[in-house]
Amino acid sequence: MNPNLTADRPSFVTHLECSLTGERYEADRLHGLSRAGRPLLVRYDLAAVQATLSRDTLAARPTDMWRWRELLPVRRTEDVVSLGEIETPLIPIPKSAGSANVWVKDEGRLPTGSFKARGLVMAVAMAKELGVTRIAMPTNGNAGAALAAYATRVGIETIVFCPEDTPEVNVREIAMQGARVWRVNGLIDDCGAIVGKGAAEGRWFDFSTLKEPYRIEGKKTMGLELAAQFGWALPDAIFYPTGGGTGLIGMWKAFDELEALGWIGSKRPRMYAVQASGCAPIVRAFEEGVEHAERWEDAHTVAAGIRVPKAVGDFLILRAVRASGGKALGVGDPAILKAVDEAARKDGLLLCPEGGATLAAYREALRTGEVDEDERVVLFNCATGLKYPMPEAPRTLDRHGPIDFDAL
Amino acid sequence: MNPNLTADRPSFVTHLECSLTGERYEADRLHGLSRAGRPLLVRYDLAAVQATLSRDTLAARPTDMWRWRELLPVRRTEDVVSLGEIETPLIPIPKSAGSANVWVKDEGRLPTGSFKARGLVMAVAMAKELGVTRIAMPTNGNAGAALAAYATRVGIETIVFCPEDTPEVNVREIAMQGARVWRVNGLIDDCGAIVGKGAAEGRWFDFSTLKEPYRIEGKKTMGLELAAQFGWALPDAIFYPTGGGTGLIGMWKAFDELEALGWIGSKRPRMYAVQASGCAPIVRAFEEGVEHAERWEDAHTVAAGIRVPKAVGDFLILRAVRASGGKALGVGDPAILKAVDEAARKDGLLLCPEGGATLAAYREALRTGEVDEDERVVLFNCATGLKYPMPEAPRTLDRHGPIDFDAL
Repeated sequence: MNPNLTADRPSFVTHLECSLTGERYEADRLHGLSRAGRPLLVRYDLAAVQATLSRDTLAARPTDMWRWRELLPVRRTEDVVSLGEIETPLIPIPKSAGSANVWVKDEGRLPTGSFKARGLVMAVAMAKELGVTRIAMPTNGNAGAALAAYATRVGIETIVFCPEDTPEVNVREIAMQGARVWRVNGLIDDCGAIVGKGAAEGRWFDFSTLKEPYRIEGKKTMGLELAAQFGWALPDAIFYPTGGGTGLIGMWKAFDELEALGWIGSKRPRMYAVQASGCAPIVRAFEEGVEHAERWEDAHTVAAGIRVPKAVGDFLILRAVRASGGKALGVGDPAILKAVDEAARKDGLLLCPEGGATLAAYREALRTGEVDEDERVVLFNCATGLKYPMPEAPRTLDRHGPIDFDAL
Repeated sequence: MNPNLTADRPSFVTHLECSLTGERYEADRLHGLSRAGRPLLVRYDLAAVQATLSRDTLAARPTDMWRWRELLPVRRTEDVVSLGEIETPLIPIPKSAGSANVWVKDEGRLPTGSFKARGLVMAVAMAKELGVTRIAMPTNGNAGAALAAYATRVGIETIVFCPEDTPEVNVREIAMQGARVWRVNGLIDDCGAIVGKGAAEGRWFDFSTLKEPYRIEGKKTMGLELAAQFGWALPDAIFYPTGGGTGLIGMWKAFDELEALGWIGSKRPRMYAVQASGCAPIVRAFEEGVEHAERWEDAHTVAAGIRVPKAVGDFLILRAVRASGGKALGVGDPAILKAVDEAARKDGLLLCPEGGATLAAYREALRTGEVDEDERVVLFNCATGLKYPMPEAPRTLDRHGPIDFDAL
C-alpha cells in the first residue's frame, strides 16, 4: 500500500563522525559514543543524493517520515519498521483578529503518542540491521514506550528503566508493549547509570539519548518535514522543549543537509531551547556563555519529559541555539500549567506539559519583544496531552430525579 | 500553510433527504431528524463535482480530510474549523510469514484521539455556518471530547452527558476542553433522552448520533480516504466496530458517491459490523433477517464505545451490511481483551477495546472461513489505546542496593 515502506531505495551513508573531534567512524558497524565520549553523527554523500532525488519526487510520495529514506541511514528495505509515522500536522493558534502565524506542530499524533517515535523507529531499524538482540534504555516515559512498541514488532528484547514518579500510563504502556520495565528511585541519569553498567558488562546495547547514533537521524525528520510543509522557506522561529535536545540537534543537522542539497537557502529559524525553570542546565550555560552545561541539582518540574539534569549533547544544543540567533529560555511550572489550560479551553488543543512550556515561552518572548507578533513561529508539542493528569470533573446527574435544566 | 483550510472551493450540496422516505429537505437550514424520525442524508450535484474535480487534483493537495471539500457540506471557507484532521495511516498486521494484507486503520491519530473527530469537525463547522450557539450531546466519551475541542475553538457553548461509568480520562478531557460535562446514572440512550428533552424546550441544538445530518458527512471521509489509499481499488473486507454505525453508513455513502464520479467501480468491500456480545442489537437483527433492531436490554461490555443499545440508523447499517455481502458479528469481552493484549505485545499496536473487537472478529472470521487469508482486509481502530485502562506494572528497583542484573 505504501511504497515508502516496500520500495528499495538507494542508501547514501558514507561514514559517521564524532560531533566533538570530527574523528571518522565506519558505517555499518555498531557504535555507541565516540572515543571522546560524545555523540556520533551520520554523514551522507549529499552530492549523490542531489543527483538522485528531487523535491518533486519527494512530493509525489506518501508524506510519512519514510519518504525521506535517501537521507536516512537504513540500507535494507526489509529492515524498515513502521507503525505509521505520519507527517504531523501544523495547527494554527488562532489570533484574536486575523490569520494565524503561530502553529503547533502536534507530535502527539505519532505512534505511541509522542515524538520519541521518530528517533526510536530509526534506532530500532538500525539495531535490527546491525544484529542487536537486546536493548536497555533509561526514560522519563515516552521514549520507553516508543522503544517497546518498535522493538516488540521486530522481536528485539527490551529492558526499560524509569524514575519512580514516571506517570503510571507510561509505565503501563511500556509493559503492555512487551518490554520489561523497572521503576528506579532516582532521576533519568540514575537510570542511565544502571543501563551503562549493564552495557559495560555486555548484557545489552545502550539506547540512551545520543549514545547510539540513529535516534538523531529519526528526529532530524522534524526539520525535513517543516521545510516541506513551509514550502522550503523555513519559519522565523522554532520553540523546542529541550531535555536531551536530540530533536533540536537533529533539526539543525537537517537544515544543513537541505542547504547542501540546494533545497533551502542559508537563512535559519531562530532556535529557542525551552526548559523548565526547575531544571534548566542549558539555560544556565547559555546565559553564562559556556559551551558545556553543568548537571542541574534537585531537578523538579511538572514537565517530566524535559527533566534532564545533564545532557550528553549539551554543546551541540548550545551551538545550534547560538548560531541561529536564538536563546535558551526557562519557564516556571505555573506558566506551563496556565498555557496547557488555556490552549485546551480556548483552542481545543490538549498539549503535554512540555508543549505547554513552548507556548508559555513564546508568550513571554512576545512580551519581551524577543519575537515579533508578525513572525512565523512553530511551537513543538511533543506528546499527546492524554497521557498527562487532568483536573477532576466529578459532577453527576440523577436521571430519575427532577432535572434543573437552567443549572446545567 | 495548508490550502485545504484557506482556499475557497466550490460547494455542490443540492439538498438533504430522508434516509427512509426520500422526502426532500432544503439545504442551508438547520435540520434534525426527518419528519419520519430518521436521519437526513446530504445530496450533492455529483455531475458538477465530476466536471470540477479530478483525482489528480486531489492527489496534489495535502492529504488531510479537508482535501475532500467538494464532497463535503461546508460552503464558506471561514467556517472550516481544523485541529489537524490527518489522513490516518494503514498499519500492516504482520503475518508470521510473508507480506501483510491486513491493515489496521489507526483512527486514534485524529484530534482528541478518536475517529469521532471526523464527524464532529464537520458537524461543528456546519453548526457555525448555520448560526448554532449552544449544543448538547450524549456520549460514551470520545464524541464528547471531539465536540468539546471543536466547539470551544469556534466559540460554541456545549453541554455533554455521559454514562456514569465513562472512563475518567474522557470526562476530564471533555471538561478541560471547555464543555460542561455531567455523568448520568444510566446508559447513552438515557443521556440522549435528557438531551432530547432540553432540545424540545429550545435550550440547545441536539448533536446526538445521526440526529443532525453532518456527522455522517465527516465520517464518510473514512471511505474516501480508503479508496485513495488503496489506489481506487477498495479492499475485500472492512471490519468496523458498530455502535451508532455512523461510520459504516458514511463509508457506504462515500463508495456510492465515488462510483457516481467514476472513480471506483461497482465492486464493494464486504462490510462487517462488529459488536460486543453483551450489546449486539444489530447482530441479532441481522440474524433474524429484520430491517430494524430492537433495543438491547442489560447492555454490558468492556468496549463502551459500542455499548449502544438502540441505534437510530439501524436500518441503514443493516442495509449496507446485507448489500455488501458482509455480516454483523458479535465478539465476547475475553476475545476483545485477548486481541488488545496480543496486538500490543506482538505488533506494538495499542488498540482501543473497540479496535480489539474488530481484530477478534477478523480472527474468528478467518477460522470459520468467512474471510480468506489472502483477502485484503481493513480493521478499524477507532481510538488511541492510551485512553483505556492498562494492567499495572509495579516493579521498583533500588538504585542504592546491589542490582541483580540477571534478574532484570
